Amino acid sequence: MDQRVAVLRLSHRPSRDKRVSTHLLLAARAFGASKAFYTGEQDDSIEESIRKVVTDWGGDFTLEYAEGWRSVFEKWEGKIVHLTMYGVPFQEAAQEIRDDPSPKLVVVGGAKVPGEVYGAAHWNISVTGQPHSEVSALALFLHELYEGKELDLEFPGAHIKTIPQARGKKLEIHPERV
Amino acid sequence: MDQRVAVLRLSHRPSRDKRVSTHLLLAARAFGASKAFYTGEQDDSIEESIRKVVTDWGGDFTLEYAEGWRSVFEKWEGKIVHLTMYGVPFQEAAQEIRDDPSPKLVVVGGAKVPGEVYGAAHWNISVTGQPHSEVSALALFLHELYEGKELDLEFPGAHIKTIPQARGKKLEIHPERV
Repeated sequence: MDQRVAVLRLSHRPSRDKRVSTHLLLAARAFGASKAFYTGEQDDSIEESIRKVVTDWGGDFTLEYAEGWRSVFEKWEGKIVHLTMYGVPFQEAAQEIRDDPSPKLVVVGGAKVPGEVYGAAHWNISVTGQPHSEVSALALFLHELYEGKELDLEFPGAHIKTIPQARGKKLEIHPERV
Repeated sequence: MDQRVAVLRLSHRPSRDKRVSTHLLLAARAFGASKAFYTGEQDDSIEESIRKVVTDWGGDFTLEYAEGWRSVFEKWEGKIVHLTMYGVPFQEAAQEIRDDPSPKLVVVGGAKVPGEVYGAAHWNISVTGQPHSEVSALALFLHELYEGKELDLEFPGAHIKTIPQARGKKLEIHPERV
């Protein structure tokens, strides 16, 4: 992809967020992010789920736990995009973000997002001003950033691949790799 | 919107799916569906959450419980689109679906989707062949179906509205309506 993207998921709580965080991380991978960080509570089971998807479905997406958002922001060599329903519509800001060649850290809130995150981000971006989901917001944002090119992504080394069908299910399985 | 869309969420399990189903239903509303059905276990609390969002944020999105998918399919006066990672890429089928003027029922799987659903749907559509989330799949599909026009949707009667900001949060609140 033209731009390297990592996603930062804030304040993961294993008991409450496991499924939504898993969906979010899988959407990050499927729509072209190369990496994700998460803060909150460390969660071996979510790390294991994501690793298993990468092994089975290919590519080299990685997930890393971080103690807090500040250290991720400080170490990030690129710009920071914070997705929030209070921000500027993504369709208005996308061209400017695309024109900036630096890697992007896309920050996705959890429970309560500290006010400093709004100040430290280079862009605060909304995907509609309506309540919906960080999963749909992230997917739409990446789809717009990559202008649909992420839909042609290949995931090298996959053991499993879907073969599009008008009816039913077809998988291509490489047993030698499983 | 040009086409009326209702979403059908299959096999909701309150204990496990509450948050993902809520995100899915909110994404349905935010991206232009006018209605949703769900099957599985009836869940007063999810119905109440969605009703509250509609009261606060406007529009007339409704949610209805149905005993099973068959009765919803049978009563549906229009075509049926089933979102599944095994289907035909949405970017290839979107124009055909758009050209069909009938209302669309967009079916989104839960745990195990019965084989008959694949047969009964007019289209089986994938949003990438990768595992991610029904929330991101639905949002991308509606965004493509409506060609981005859903981003300009107005939600009449809202008590609360976000005012886009480059930094921070701004809400417009109509206390007389709250």
